Amino acid sequence: MSSLTIIGLGPGNLAMRTPQATAALERATDLVGYGPYVARVEAPAHVVRHVSDNREELDRARHALTLAASGRHVAVVSSGDAGVFAMASAVFEAIEHGEPGWAGLDVSVVPGISALLAVAARLGAPLGGDFCALSLSDNLKPWPLVLQRLRAAAGAGFVIALYNPLSQARPWQLGAALAELREILPGTITIVFATAVSRPEERIVITTLAQADAACADMRTLVLIGSVGTRLIARPDAPPWVYTERRVTAR
Amino acid sequence: MSSLTIIGLGPGNLAMRTPQATAALERATDLVGYGPYVARVEAPAHVVRHVSDNREELDRARHALTLAASGRHVAVVSSGDAGVFAMASAVFEAIEHGEPGWAGLDVSVVPGISALLAVAARLGAPLGGDFCALSLSDNLKPWPLVLQRLRAAAGAGFVIALYNPLSQARPWQLGAALAELREILPGTITIVFATAVSRPEERIVITTLAQADAACADMRTLVLIGSVGTRLIARPDAPPWVYTERRVTAR
Repeated sequence: MSSLTIIGLGPGNLAMRTPQATAALERATDLVGYGPYVARVEAPAHVVRHVSDNREELDRARHALTLAASGRHVAVVSSGDAGVFAMASAVFEAIEHGEPGWAGLDVSVVPGISALLAVAARLGAPLGGDFCALSLSDNLKPWPLVLQRLRAAAGAGFVIALYNPLSQARPWQLGAALAELREILPGTITIVFATAVSRPEERIVITTLAQADAACADMRTLVLIGSVGTRLIARPDAPPWVYTERRVTAR
Repeated sequence: MSSLTIIGLGPGNLAMRTPQATAALERATDLVGYGPYVARVEAPAHVVRHVSDNREELDRARHALTLAASGRHVAVVSSGDAGVFAMASAVFEAIEHGEPGWAGLDVSVVPGISALLAVAARLGAPLGGDFCALSLSDNLKPWPLVLQRLRAAAGAGFVIALYNPLSQARPWQLGAALAELREILPGTITIVFATAVSRPEERIVITTLAQADAACADMRTLVLIGSVGTRLIARPDAPPWVYTERRVTAR
């Protein structure tokens, strides 16, 4: 019996990879994913690594399904959680529009610690209330819709996690998003740029909306937009804690 | 040196608890939390269990901080992720408004697989695009604000995860929220009631907004509101996959 397991590896630190994910990786005959994520997985030499570029998600999903249909145990790996701006959705899209037999394959999804949760834990408790996750990429949705969602979420007081804030192909989106937010939110709102959390190259910048500079972000950065209830607690000899009050009073 | 670690236990299945969480629990001299969550942790007999009711979060946080300040290694445990509608925010609120020495304690947060991520993985990939998490409890925010956030998120096309959909003290909120959503979204939108995911008593109901019945939920249920891009894929001998298309076209 073959299988296809879509696995969230967590943010990078092995201590945050679940035993369920590790067990699923140990069953795999084939690893499929974006190069740096596949490289993170230790596996015996007989395991075949199928590495592809970051932007070929649907091709990669079809390739994984073809392998599984041929009898292999395939692990499709993503950083963080596979269901959050990662491979899971592409695999199901490929199943729906692909070979009739694919819906009968033994497919499962193994959740992982998402970048959002890892960043939040590192900072304190910035997701103390209602929150949303929004991709700034306009590869898959029109830019006016990105802005509409940003305005809706900020206007209603959600804490916002921005995924895919910018890339070489999309250098201006984060700056435009910050400009839009300055029209809606006070300049004192807390903004955090969190890059490569839990990895050796981790970098965290805590600032305000008025001061925030899009140049603090790269394609691996999660940008967190606080709400009016987001607060800093000074600590001796450490960066401040960031948390969002649980209680919201009428505005 | 004492410590206070705020730990997300994951949704219940031990295979989803991270090694980081397990290691932190093994260091604890004291476990603090809501009774059923503390009961989930296996620990040697000398570890002291401090159990409290679910609604006393700030008192529980102060108690944990007092223990840590007295030299104990305290683990505050939550189900899922401690930063998502759980204990982390209450602990930082207690630090900010509590004893001056508390901000200098060795505090850390260990992320966990949140109910949202566990439910999404179980269903397929319903969070394929932008999403938000919203608590329906009006203990900590006024009900009109809950409705405002619900309208904003649904109107902008976010997939919505509703936490705390109802309780014995709040029996009507979920019905009112579904009625509000019916004013904004098509009746064909997918709604999922997911209860106790990954545990033996797991129960999942996949339905539509038009058909959704608040009686399918209890206080442990996560209610997922799809978007217009949320689709079902029929499977032989299994419930359908639920996933949300990555691509959104202008509406």
